[in-house]
Amino acid sequence: MEPQAHAQPAIGLDIGGTKIAAGVVDAAGAIVQRAHAQTPGTSPALVEQAVLDLVGGLRRDAPAAPVGVGAAGWMNPDTGTVLFSPHLAWRNEPLRDRLSELLGGTVCVANDADAAGWAEYRFGAGQGEPNLVCLTLGTGIGGSLVADGRLRRGRFGLAGEFGHQVIVPGGHLCACGNRGCWEQYASGNAVGREARELARANSPMAQTLLDAAGGNAEAVTGALVTDLAAAGDPASREIVATAGRWLGIGLANLAAALDPGAFVVGGGLGAASTLLLDEAESAYRRHLPGRGYRPFARISRAGLGADAGLIGAADLARLHATGQPG
Amino acid sequence: MEPQAHAQPAIGLDIGGTKIAAGVVDAAGAIVQRAHAQTPGTSPALVEQAVLDLVGGLRRDAPAAPVGVGAAGWMNPDTGTVLFSPHLAWRNEPLRDRLSELLGGTVCVANDADAAGWAEYRFGAGQGEPNLVCLTLGTGIGGSLVADGRLRRGRFGLAGEFGHQVIVPGGHLCACGNRGCWEQYASGNAVGREARELARANSPMAQTLLDAAGGNAEAVTGALVTDLAAAGDPASREIVATAGRWLGIGLANLAAALDPGAFVVGGGLGAASTLLLDEAESAYRRHLPGRGYRPFARISRAGLGADAGLIGAADLARLHATGQPG
Repeated sequence: MEPQAHAQPAIGLDIGGTKIAAGVVDAAGAIVQRAHAQTPGTSPALVEQAVLDLVGGLRRDAPAAPVGVGAAGWMNPDTGTVLFSPHLAWRNEPLRDRLSELLGGTVCVANDADAAGWAEYRFGAGQGEPNLVCLTLGTGIGGSLVADGRLRRGRFGLAGEFGHQVIVPGGHLCACGNRGCWEQYASGNAVGREARELARANSPMAQTLLDAAGGNAEAVTGALVTDLAAAGDPASREIVATAGRWLGIGLANLAAALDPGAFVVGGGLGAASTLLLDEAESAYRRHLPGRGYRPFARISRAGLGADAGLIGAADLARLHATGQPG
Repeated sequence: MEPQAHAQPAIGLDIGGTKIAAGVVDAAGAIVQRAHAQTPGTSPALVEQAVLDLVGGLRRDAPAAPVGVGAAGWMNPDTGTVLFSPHLAWRNEPLRDRLSELLGGTVCVANDADAAGWAEYRFGAGQGEPNLVCLTLGTGIGGSLVADGRLRRGRFGLAGEFGHQVIVPGGHLCACGNRGCWEQYASGNAVGREARELARANSPMAQTLLDAAGGNAEAVTGALVTDLAAAGDPASREIVATAGRWLGIGLANLAAALDPGAFVVGGGLGAASTLLLDEAESAYRRHLPGRGYRPFARISRAGLGADAGLIGAADLARLHATGQPG
């Protein structure tokens, strides 16, 4: 390893269901070059080709840079295999080995929430806190755990699926097949679902929501609800506040289990709503076991926005390439 | 450090509400000498004196042995301070420094469930599994987390309080002040409470329970229920099976968050009931998010029984004294 290897840039990719974001990231977590592409359907071969094209372009200025790939799904970090991905047709796909063969050099694969959480720990709102829980509130609730300064992924690489803690037995059906998962109560999708239900019922409470959605209850989205809540619509505020309370109860559960020094909350819903975070903080403080005898963890808004996954994937690859723990 | 320091014996103590168990533990986790005393009330000074007496006796054969103390309560392992203990009058008690001053040599303090879990990892049912969740089902649910081969205690030393995950919002009141904590549904106390309720109502289902308790509903205990369940009493079997199902749902929640390779379940209820563990395993498999795409964690009965806390406390002290991570 050359002396400056620690400081060499790395390439990060965040493969989403519709878009692949890529960039060259320096050792301080800054994106010094960007590229992106549409996700070309769900076929592994097509996605791999898109990754090759993006990395090929970025490596012109950063030759031999290690490559980190983040994607939704379950990765086994030891084997680099994707067990399952919701957006993509990867099933037991040996993604790391395939890409490593095609690209050469160091390739790491990571769950997108793990990559994002790692980035917040290293360069974002979680800096300096080696015991950290990061959450991404969007379609569901993505999560990651940093304990004693390292990403903890569990035995099979699947830790951090906090959104699937059952918090309301017999509650709303979740895509995972269970009922009452946390993400059915505190995600952007949960906010949208509740608002659509109110709108479909033609509740007088929902008039502003319906007007804003052109009279079409099905066009009400979580983002619309957070916008209207910020603008003062009472029904939207109630829905967001309710999601915030569920968020806080889940945070207290995680604090009981993991005792982090801080929570970092990002994703579309987390970034959008001060009301949500205020309500979450209040419910968290009300439900923390041992309140009065222990410090409260800090609850912070994520600092890196939608770039977190890309930055974290690159950083994990750089650390791996230089023999440092991530 | 002398070459044989790693192998030197250590002294472990497990301070309970009624009894202090102590012993000299060798480097393989075997208890080579034992001592015990009644817990002399709740006064810190009296408890400290009892610890001094026990250690003084044991150090005759193991001079200068490091001392590990496990107790129920919240310890800050960095400062060695007891923030709160349910049985004892310790409140912000600098226990480690006090004992270290009185005893000399290395003193470590640990939460009793952490000590027990560490012992199961090192010498018991969790050997060889560096990602491990240990549970002690008794009055409540004690817990500990080993991730990547080390005990993880969180930012303030309070991780592993799995029993206080809210699993039934608005459910049974818990001593922690919340409602619906897991330990209100899957502990020995929960089993006793349900059975007493049935007995008080003079349910025909509860006749065997009432007879066994001399006709006094208030004399029905969790231990009695597990005994009768093992003997085939239908009401007792239902109560234990219900607790087992709640146990399994909570295990699935923990698997979602932590992805351990194994769960080790001990404590009075955990040790007593095969029915409970069978039902827990079945509910766990039904509720694990991603079932079908991921391996199931093993669920094992604890291997060290009531000695686990003492053994783990001693081992943590030995590791600390020899500069090894615990």
